[in-house]
Amino acid sequence: MTAPTVATRGPAVATTLHSHERHVSPDAVSPRTVRVALAGCGVVGSALVRLLHASAAEIGAHHNVRFEIARVLVRDVNRARDVPLQSAKFTSDVASFAAENVDVVIEAVGGREVALDIAHRALSGGRRFVTANKELIAGDGRQLAQLAVASGGSLDFGAAVGGSVPVISTLRGLDGTPAPASVRGILNGTSNYVLSLVERGATYDAALASARRRGLAEADCTRDLDGSDAAAKLAIIGWVCFGIDPAAQRIRRRGLLPDPARFVRHAAAVGARVRLLAESVRVGNHEVTASVGPVIVPLESAFARTELEDNRVEIDRGWTTPLSVSGPGAGGDPTATAILSDLLSSAGSRRHRSAASFSFTVVDDPRSHRWLIAGRLSAAELARAVAGAGVGTLDAGTDGAESRVITEPASTASLDRILQELRERGADPLVARSELGRPPWSIA
Amino acid sequence: MTAPTVATRGPAVATTLHSHERHVSPDAVSPRTVRVALAGCGVVGSALVRLLHASAAEIGAHHNVRFEIARVLVRDVNRARDVPLQSAKFTSDVASFAAENVDVVIEAVGGREVALDIAHRALSGGRRFVTANKELIAGDGRQLAQLAVASGGSLDFGAAVGGSVPVISTLRGLDGTPAPASVRGILNGTSNYVLSLVERGATYDAALASARRRGLAEADCTRDLDGSDAAAKLAIIGWVCFGIDPAAQRIRRRGLLPDPARFVRHAAAVGARVRLLAESVRVGNHEVTASVGPVIVPLESAFARTELEDNRVEIDRGWTTPLSVSGPGAGGDPTATAILSDLLSSAGSRRHRSAASFSFTVVDDPRSHRWLIAGRLSAAELARAVAGAGVGTLDAGTDGAESRVITEPASTASLDRILQELRERGADPLVARSELGRPPWSIA
Repeated sequence: MTAPTVATRGPAVATTLHSHERHVSPDAVSPRTVRVALAGCGVVGSALVRLLHASAAEIGAHHNVRFEIARVLVRDVNRARDVPLQSAKFTSDVASFAAENVDVVIEAVGGREVALDIAHRALSGGRRFVTANKELIAGDGRQLAQLAVASGGSLDFGAAVGGSVPVISTLRGLDGTPAPASVRGILNGTSNYVLSLVERGATYDAALASARRRGLAEADCTRDLDGSDAAAKLAIIGWVCFGIDPAAQRIRRRGLLPDPARFVRHAAAVGARVRLLAESVRVGNHEVTASVGPVIVPLESAFARTELEDNRVEIDRGWTTPLSVSGPGAGGDPTATAILSDLLSSAGSRRHRSAASFSFTVVDDPRSHRWLIAGRLSAAELARAVAGAGVGTLDAGTDGAESRVITEPASTASLDRILQELRERGADPLVARSELGRPPWSIA
Repeated sequence: MTAPTVATRGPAVATTLHSHERHVSPDAVSPRTVRVALAGCGVVGSALVRLLHASAAEIGAHHNVRFEIARVLVRDVNRARDVPLQSAKFTSDVASFAAENVDVVIEAVGGREVALDIAHRALSGGRRFVTANKELIAGDGRQLAQLAVASGGSLDFGAAVGGSVPVISTLRGLDGTPAPASVRGILNGTSNYVLSLVERGATYDAALASARRRGLAEADCTRDLDGSDAAAKLAIIGWVCFGIDPAAQRIRRRGLLPDPARFVRHAAAVGARVRLLAESVRVGNHEVTASVGPVIVPLESAFARTELEDNRVEIDRGWTTPLSVSGPGAGGDPTATAILSDLLSSAGSRRHRSAASFSFTVVDDPRSHRWLIAGRLSAAELARAVAGAGVGTLDAGTDGAESRVITEPASTASLDRILQELRERGADPLVARSELGRPPWSIA
C-alpha cells in the first residue's frame, strides 16, 4: 500500500483532515500511543495523572489516542503520591527527564528557571510543549513560540490563564476579527477566595488558612495577593489579543497587601465590594493601557458576584454586552482539565497561533477615574489632601482612626500626587479605583 | 523538489503540524487562497461578507489565508445588498452554486430542506462545510458527520449554538473528561429579548416589534417563543457532550406562547423573573433528561441577570461553581464572528469531533420540582385542583381573574394531572418550573 503524497502547501491541509478523520473513525481499533513526559507532580500534576488514568477509555474511544506517561520529574522521588503510576517512572534528574523519548512534554512545576530549561529542551527537540505556567509564558512566551515555529514543535498554554475557564480559547475564537475594546477580569482565584471569605466575616489569616487547606494557595502567596500572578496572566492575554510581547508590557499594578481585609472594610462602607481586577483597555487605534489593582464594584455587578476561587473574564467587542466566561480559576482538577484540553488539541491536528498580528503598544492610562482613597487621618485632612491636588470629592466618611473619600474623576498623575502627600504625612494610604458611578450611594 | 511523504497514521499529524507552522511563519509572503461558497446573504450572511472584507489583512497576516468568496446563493439576485461583492457572484440556482469549485461551503440560509441539499452536495464532494443552522444539525447532524468522515470533508457548526458565545468550543474543551452533571442555559436570544423588554414595561407586541427592528426576530418567531429553537440547540449540546443522536432526543418542551407577558406578570408577583431555560441533566450513570421551558428564577440569579438577546450556558462539572459562558446570542455580527471562528479552524488544521463517545440515553424527568401554576379561577379552586393530585401548596395568590400557586415538589406526572384538570375546567393554565426554593418569598 502506498502512503499518500502530500504537498507542503494547500493540499496538505485537506489530505490531513482526511487522514485525521480516519484516525478517529469508529472503525479504528487500536489507539495511537502518545508518549508524555510530565514535569511536576504537585496539586495540578497529580490531578492530571489521575484524570488521564480515569478517562483513558473515553480518550481512546473519542480521540483514538492513548496517553502513556513515560516519565515524571519531581523534586523528591521518595515522597508518597496518590497517583496510579509505578515509582520507577519518577526522576529528579532534569537531564534524564529531558532525554526521555516522548511526543509531548507537560510542564507543571511552576516558577521560571527549571520550567524554561524544560521548555527549551522540549521545543528544541521539536516536541510539543504544554504548560500551565503563566510566569514562564509571560516572561519567555514569545521566544518559546519562535523556537516552536523554527523546530516544528508546538506550544500550548491555555491552562496558564483562567484555570478551567476557557479564556485563551475564547480569545482565539475571535481571531480574524477586530481587536476587542477591552478585556477585563478576575484572574487570580486565590485572592478572590480570600476577599470572599473576609466578606463573609473571616479574618484575613483564617481566609488564607482555608485557601491553603483547599489547595488554592501555596505557603507563600505574595504573588497572588500583590497582583503579580494576575499581571502575568494579563500579559498573556495582551499578547494573544493585541499582539504585544508579554515581556514588554508595562502593567500598572496595585495589590491587596499588606492587609486585604482593609479593602473589604472600605468597600463595605460604601455598600460595595472590592475585586482584584486585571484589564487591558484600548485607548487609541494602536494603544492599550493595562493594569491590575483593587476596584470597588457595585454589589449587583457580575464581578462582585464572582466569589471564592472563581475567575471571570469579560471581552468587550462593542456588542450590546461583553462576551463573558467564568468558573473555577484555581485548583487541581480544573487546571488539569485545561491541560488535557491543550493536550488533546496538540495531539490532534488542531494548531494554535501564539498571538494576534496586531501591533498595539502599551501606554500609561490617559483616562480619569473615580478613586476610593483611605488613610489614617481625619476626614477634613483627607479632603484637604485631595483638594490640594485639584481633585473634587464626591463623598467622605470616617470610622475610628481611618477616613475615606471617593473622588471626582482624576488622572493617575493626580492620584499619585495625593498618595505621595498622604504617605509623607504617615497616613498609610489605601487606594482602589471606583466603578460605582456618581452617587446616590453614601459612605458609611 | 520532492513533496514529503506522509503516512496515514501517527506520523501524519506531526509532519502536518510542521508544514502548517511553515504556512503561518512570518516569512511566508503570499497567503493561501481558500475559495468559499456562501449560501444565504441575509442578516448573518451579509455580516459575514463584511467581516471577511474588513478583516482580510489581519486574516492574511495572522493565518496566512485569503478567503475568496466565489459564489453566493440567494433567493433574489436583484435585491440590493450592503455587501462589498460584485453582483455577478450572486446566483439563485442551487445546482450552479453547488457546482462551483470551492474549498469551503458556508450555509446561512436556515431551514431544513435547501440547507440539507447544500450540505449533502458539499460533503459528498469532500468539501468543508460550515453552518450556523441548528435545525439542520439537530435533525441531520449525525448523518452529515458520517458523510464528512466517509468523504474526507469536514463539518463545523459552532455558530449554531449561542451566537458569539463559545458554547460548543467550551464543551469540546472538556473532551476526555467525565460527562458533566448538567448543561443548562438560555439558548434563545429572541425570546430573552422579548421577556426583558416586557419586564421593563413594554407590551408583548412592542417588544416583538423592537426585536424585529434590531434584526433579532424573523417575521415568524414562533420557533423562538415556543421553545423549538432552544430545543434544537439543546439537542446539539446533548450530542456534543453526551453522545446522543440529536434527532433521537426526546426533549420535553413548554414555550412562552401565546402570551409571554403573562409569564412575566406571574414571575413578578413572586418577586422573581421568568427565563426560557434549556437543560440536559444527568439523572443516572447513563441517563439524561432534557427539557426546554419557562423557569421562575430568583432576581439575583445569573440567569435572571441575563438580559436582552444574551445567551448564557452553565456547565456543571461537579466543581464548586459551574463553568459559564455568556454574551450576545443573536444578531448578525456575533453569529458571523462564530462562523469565522469555525472557518479559520476548518481552514487551518484544527479538527473538531462531532460528538462524545458516551452512550447516554434520554429519559423522562424522574425528579420532582416546585411549579408555579396559574389559571383563570379562584385561589381556593386552584388549591383544590393541586391538592386533588396529592400535591402540597407552598403559597398562593390572586390578582383579578387569575390565581397562582407555587407547589411543593411534584413529579411531572402529578403536574400533568393538575394541568389536565385545569384545562378541562377551562382555566387556561400556565405553568413554569420554580427554582425559588422554599419561602421566605411571598406571592403578591
